[in-house]
Formats: sequence, C-alpha cells, structure tokens
Amino acid sequence: MTTTPVRGLSPVLDTGRTMLGPALRDAVRSHLGPEMSRIAHYHFGWSDAEGRPTGTWGGKMVRPTLALLSARAAGAADADGVPAALAVELVHNFSLVHDDIMDGDETRRGRPTAWTVFGVPDAILAGDAMVTAATSVLLEAPGAGANSAALSLMTATQRMIDGQTADVAFERRDDVTPAECLRMAGDKTGALLGCACSLGAELVGGERAVVERLRAFGEHIGLAFQLVDDLLGIWGDPDRAGKQVGADLRARKKSLPVVAALNAPGSDELRALYLRSEPLTEGAVQRVTDLVERAGGRDWARDEAARQVAEAGECLAAARIPDDVRGEFLEVAGFILGRQL
Amino acid sequence: MTTTPVRGLSPVLDTGRTMLGPALRDAVRSHLGPEMSRIAHYHFGWSDAEGRPTGTWGGKMVRPTLALLSARAAGAADADGVPAALAVELVHNFSLVHDDIMDGDETRRGRPTAWTVFGVPDAILAGDAMVTAATSVLLEAPGAGANSAALSLMTATQRMIDGQTADVAFERRDDVTPAECLRMAGDKTGALLGCACSLGAELVGGERAVVERLRAFGEHIGLAFQLVDDLLGIWGDPDRAGKQVGADLRARKKSLPVVAALNAPGSDELRALYLRSEPLTEGAVQRVTDLVERAGGRDWARDEAARQVAEAGECLAAARIPDDVRGEFLEVAGFILGRQL
Repeated sequence: MTTTPVRGLSPVLDTGRTMLGPALRDAVRSHLGPEMSRIAHYHFGWSDAEGRPTGTWGGKMVRPTLALLSARAAGAADADGVPAALAVELVHNFSLVHDDIMDGDETRRGRPTAWTVFGVPDAILAGDAMVTAATSVLLEAPGAGANSAALSLMTATQRMIDGQTADVAFERRDDVTPAECLRMAGDKTGALLGCACSLGAELVGGERAVVERLRAFGEHIGLAFQLVDDLLGIWGDPDRAGKQVGADLRARKKSLPVVAALNAPGSDELRALYLRSEPLTEGAVQRVTDLVERAGGRDWARDEAARQVAEAGECLAAARIPDDVRGEFLEVAGFILGRQL
Repeated sequence: MTTTPVRGLSPVLDTGRTMLGPALRDAVRSHLGPEMSRIAHYHFGWSDAEGRPTGTWGGKMVRPTLALLSARAAGAADADGVPAALAVELVHNFSLVHDDIMDGDETRRGRPTAWTVFGVPDAILAGDAMVTAATSVLLEAPGAGANSAALSLMTATQRMIDGQTADVAFERRDDVTPAECLRMAGDKTGALLGCACSLGAELVGGERAVVERLRAFGEHIGLAFQLVDDLLGIWGDPDRAGKQVGADLRARKKSLPVVAALNAPGSDELRALYLRSEPLTEGAVQRVTDLVERAGGRDWARDEAARQVAEAGECLAAARIPDDVRGEFLEVAGFILGRQL
C-alpha cells in the first residue's frame, strides 16, 4: 500500500511523522480489538468509513514529535522515546473523539467526526479504548521510567478532563476571572503539551530537573498557543487560513481576551451585550469586538502570550540538554505558535 | 457524618466494605477535580444530585473485596491490596457510567443514572476521570508489581470494551454462535472479575502461578455468573427478587441460552419468531421460552454454568494460597452466583 506523508511542515516534524506513522498504526492494531481499531483507523484518517485505506498517514504528529525530542534531550535515541510519543498521541486523540461527542461537532479535519459515522456508543468506546491503549503502550516500554511516565500521563489526562469540564462550566457563568480562564487553558491545552515535551525524557529515566523544565516549557507554549488562538478567533489574521473572524464571539465563547475585557472597569455595555443567550447580530459582533479591544482585552492577551513565550524560552534555556535538540524544540514551538497545534 | 454500611451481605464482604468505603472516597477526592468528584459522589450513591450526603457508602464492593483477598492470598496484608481494590472498583464504575449512556439506561440501583442528572458530556468526562484515576491509584502504590498490575488492569479494561462492542454488534446480527457469545461474556464480565481476583496478588509481587490461577478462577466465576444471569432473565426464580421473567426475551437479547437454541437443529420457528424487529406479544414470549427450552438452550446454559463453576474450583484448588483465604474466595463466589455481582 502506498502511504503519502504530508511533507514540508518542518524538518523536525517531517522526521517525527516518518518515524511515528507506522508505529502508531501498529500500536492501534495490537492494542485495540478489531471493531475499535476500525474506528481509530477512520478517526486518524488512515481509512474511510468503509475501512478502505485512504493512502495517508494523517495528523501533524506535533505532540509525539515533541515526545521523541524529549527522549533525545535526555541523551537517549529517538527510538527509545517512541512509546512516549505513541501514548501522548493516543491520549490526545481519545480527548478529540470524546470532545467531538460532547460538543456535538460534526466535522474534524474536513471529515465527518467518528460519532456521526459510527454512532455515539461506539465513539465513546473508541475513545475509552485509546486512553487504555496509551497507558499499556507506555507500561510495556522497557524504559527505566515507565511507571513514573505513565503516572505523569495520567496526571496530564486528569488535568485535561478538568480543563474541559471548566470550559463547559464557564459557558454557564457570568463571573469567570482571567486567572480562572488561564488555569482552565493550562489544564485543557498546557498539561498535555507539557507532558509531550517531557514524557520521552521521563520514560528513558532522564534527570528530574530536565524533565521538569521541559514540562514547564511545554505548558507555557500551550498557554501561549491558546492565547494566540483566542486572539485569532476574534480578530483573525488575513495572512492565514483558519478560524473565521468573529466566530468565537458569535458563539459567545468565554475566550481569554473576552474574559479579561469583561473583568475590566467600565465593561457594562460589553457585559450587557455579551452575557445573554440570544444570537448576536453582525452589528453586535462588530461592537463587541471594539469593546473587547477598548477594555484592553486584546492588549492583555498579547502581553500574556508574549510573557508565556518568554517564560517558555527561559525554561528551555535552563534545561541541560544538547543544543541541537533545543533548536529543534524551538522549531516545533514556532510551528505551534504559527497556530498549527 | 454518620455513614451506614449495609451489613449482612457476607462476613467477607462486610469486612471489605468497611475497609474500602472511606479509602474509595479519599481516592475520588484526591484524584478527581471538584466537578468530576461531585458526579462520582452521586454515582457511587454517597451524595444526592445537589451534593448533599446520603449517609450511605453505596455499592456491594464485590470486586474490590476480591482484590483485597488476592493480596492476602499472596501473603500480604489486606491493606497492601487496597490500591488494587480501589483501581478495580474505579474501572468497574467507569464502565457503568459509560454503559448507562450507551444503553440509554435511566436508572441504576434505583436512582436516576449520572447522565440523566448531569448530562451526557459531563457523564462521559466523569467516566474518563474514573478510569484515569484507577491507573494513577495503582501506579502510586508502593507494591513491587505496580507496573505489571496496571498493565493487567488495562488489558482487562480493553477486553471489557471489546465485550461491550461485541454485545452491541450482536444485536444487529442473526448468525452469532455460542462460542462467540461465550467469548463476549468472558470479555465483558469475566475479564474484570479475573482481574479483581488476582490484581492484589500481582500488585504485592505474588508468585506468577498464583496470580494466573486466581485470574482464571475469577474469569470462570464471571462466565458462570453471566450464564446464570441469562437463565434467570428468561425463566426467573420465584425465590429471588431481581430480573423479571421474560424481560430479556421481550428485549430480543442475544443471551447465551437463546444463542445456543438458535444454533441448534430445527430452530426454524424460533428464528422466525425471534430474529425480527417488531415487539413480541406476550403469547410469543411464552412460545419463544418453550422453543428455547425444547431446542436445548436451557440445558446447555445450565451445563455450561456447572462446567465453569467446576473449572473455577479446580483453578482455586490448584493455587498455592492459605486455606482460610481460599474459603473466603469461595464465600464471595457463592454470593456472586447467588446473582449479586
């Protein structure tokens, strides 16, 4: 069968994808039963709904590539980090499959989501099978730190679940603070990215200080990504394809710039417009955009993103790792902040 | 706060409940975030939908009690088996919370199911949080076999997921064989019970042969339970409360006695009556009951249950464990086969 990896993302990511594509498929085949494997193959984009190969490997593999890098950061070979990479990717996709059900999202990566094709019950089970397989892959690894790595992965997963819970709960609340919102984003996006950046190092028994600094680096990058993503969700970026300008506001999302603005002095008009349930007219979306900016929400989010990037850089600089690996971490971080997580 | 454990189930189970009730609550509090903990408290019966304590510990704790016994079987103290017990109970309840969503079941243990109270999204997340916590509890345990025990728990969980998948798929198929049906029941019910009977021993680093024999004992008891449960689902038992006579047939369930009868020679009338989608009249339920019995479905299931119980007994007899622990395993098995798993 011919498989066509999408090349040209970044040299580091191209290498990651080449190493990990077949390994991920093997892990799915050997750990999931035939029915669950079929759904996973569809979800990952390897097969169509009838099980016919699509000829693609699917996915950018950003998180698992970071996990490979972290094994190299601890002085091990890329190959030693593969179980960590697969585990992170399986947990990430478990969360996507379940989130799509919870959010009622009908498309992902331009294709119908798993639950729309296989039904909610089988999609719940497929997510369950993926998170279970993630733990198994890691515990079967020969690495000295398998137990500790699996525990870190579970901690990140638990935080991701808390972040998703908080995100949903925020939609029903009018008094969310920027601090709460940052914590939610740290749980929902930062925790697994921090785990990805450190899990390979932890698995191969890397130095505790290196593991912790790489984890902090990833968490800060994750938060910076979320801030940038929220900014683009309101103001967009004419140079990039992606989120539609105003989409988050039309959905009345409690995104970071909005929450900062809602908590700023003199936000009465913004609160009156935004904190209700009727759909916003296009005029109101434009007015809300202006009010969020005037209340300082845009500046706050930009400053906060810059602060997170700076902290990420300090963590990475402080980690005792080879310089070429540091450079590759920065390359992938740049790719993520170019809004492709 | 006063808590009232339901006593008098069996001396072994009473002891298990007393040890495990508070420990399970602590594990939920320390591993789940506040929102997920609230849902878990409700699901376990410790709180009502508003979070007010109910004053009960909830649950019979059959599986975790078996896990404690298995630690003692390997020469350790009950207390050393507690993490294994909690992990098994958390995985079991993860599966209940998700199964209730999948099956659309609105009540469990006489109370509204979690998804009807908290909504499907939060109930999916609560199940996810429980299975994640199960792994963490086990990996944090000081036992020599934490890694190996966690891997066994994941294997059992993966089989449980496969069993649930097969069960759902069988409803759409007309050609299920008794062998497939036994395999499904082994996955769905046997795997976690086998895990419960061996996980404590595995966690404390017990002898491999003891672990394997206890696991096989539990799997056979699980299969026997399923066969008895299926028999009672058709013919009931006037001496016991529980399943309503004929309930499984009215739901056209592909239970073990039915599948055996459908595969027996001369089952044309049964197949014509049963393998269609219209509701069965009460007369037809009676006729199907007779046809399943005449085709040998009842005898086959009884014989198979007896065979499973005999094999379970052989496995337990062959395990090098203290006689008092063996006696307690038999006491709990008797309780399960009295149809209270």
